[in-house]
Amino acid sequence: VNAADKLQNIRVVLCGTVHPGNIGACARALKTMGLTDLRLVHPVRFPHPQAEWLASGAADVLARARRHDSLDEALEGAAFTVACTARVRELAAPMVTARVAAARLIEVGATQPVALVFGNETSGLTGAEVGLCNLLATIPADPTYSSLNLGAAVQVVCYEVRQAALAGDMPRYATPELAAHRQIEDFYTDLEKTLVATGFLDPAHPKKLMPRLRRLFSRARLETEEVSILRGVLRSFRTPKIR
Amino acid sequence: VNAADKLQNIRVVLCGTVHPGNIGACARALKTMGLTDLRLVHPVRFPHPQAEWLASGAADVLARARRHDSLDEALEGAAFTVACTARVRELAAPMVTARVAAARLIEVGATQPVALVFGNETSGLTGAEVGLCNLLATIPADPTYSSLNLGAAVQVVCYEVRQAALAGDMPRYATPELAAHRQIEDFYTDLEKTLVATGFLDPAHPKKLMPRLRRLFSRARLETEEVSILRGVLRSFRTPKIR
Repeated sequence: VNAADKLQNIRVVLCGTVHPGNIGACARALKTMGLTDLRLVHPVRFPHPQAEWLASGAADVLARARRHDSLDEALEGAAFTVACTARVRELAAPMVTARVAAARLIEVGATQPVALVFGNETSGLTGAEVGLCNLLATIPADPTYSSLNLGAAVQVVCYEVRQAALAGDMPRYATPELAAHRQIEDFYTDLEKTLVATGFLDPAHPKKLMPRLRRLFSRARLETEEVSILRGVLRSFRTPKIR
Repeated sequence: VNAADKLQNIRVVLCGTVHPGNIGACARALKTMGLTDLRLVHPVRFPHPQAEWLASGAADVLARARRHDSLDEALEGAAFTVACTARVRELAAPMVTARVAAARLIEVGATQPVALVFGNETSGLTGAEVGLCNLLATIPADPTYSSLNLGAAVQVVCYEVRQAALAGDMPRYATPELAAHRQIEDFYTDLEKTLVATGFLDPAHPKKLMPRLRRLFSRARLETEEVSILRGVLRSFRTPKIR
């Protein structure tokens, strides 16, 4: 199962969004994370050119967004639902971090429809709306100013959902061809000889010079091509061209 | 050490931001995650009412944002720098996920100034800007549409930085004193001059020699003492003692 398949059952529901630009920004946030199912409950102004503008390359997600008359209706068919909120609620579902919630969404979402629910820009979700959900998720923000912009909050939570889908399957970026042990040792030998020749390294009092230089290059994990360049540099020091 | 202390040494640098609203959104993103040091390199329109508007409760972060004439200047004093990018680069620093980069930022940032760097909305960072940084970080997004809005990208990366800071007080092993940006740039200047003097580097056909060497040393995250040794080595090459 790849990431895209794991994300198919996840819908994102926005309740009572006031600014159309935020709806567009949320559509974009979803699409960048591989999510496509956006639901709008009572958007205040929609459709709207500002939504299109901020959706940018996610116009398709916006165009396919379904409107609902209530959160209850938008959650139809969902087997597991997560309400995103910035504050602790009395008598509500258990509260977890966005990261933990994302992992559970991916787990259940593997086989059944699930939903992520966000409230409006000023007051968030109502108690009744939160009451319809299974779990409360929060983004651990700075307690002195925890007010994320709606689009930014949707971006962070969708990001966590995608990372959960990728888990154990995180993208790995190609490592260039690293130099083999022998090549590197030959380079060190060459380096030491050159430093002795220039007088920088006194064989009678080597101090910790070679160990220090080895440690530096070792940290860099030299590539094959880099070792060639470095040895070329050393050669040029021993036999400089006359300029 | 609490989260707030761990975040004090982290600055966020925005290069060539076009839309003032995005600068405001970034200020807000920083503040929600407990970051306060915003740097602006050549913002296209700033100050601007739209920046204030989108900063919302983070007007203080916006007001304290420092302007710089170059990324080089904005990185002054930083011991470890991370460039955020959406694409894989040739001959650049190693690429890791935002999560991995955040952990390293927090590790080094515990004792030394560090920086997170973002490019502009359309083209991102230039090759030269990326070349000034130690590590490349990317947000694992959907490969078919990976274009996050600038404010959203800053929000996600700052979020990861905060989560890394909150991560259960991991045993920390002392990080040696890393060389500051300026020291390292001075070393590169010295290195280049020396290579030209020995004839290894032909200024008329520099090829990719300096970018390759920068990339190598950048990966190693040079320590202050190591830079001194390397400069001593270069000096000894220019004026060898007769043995």
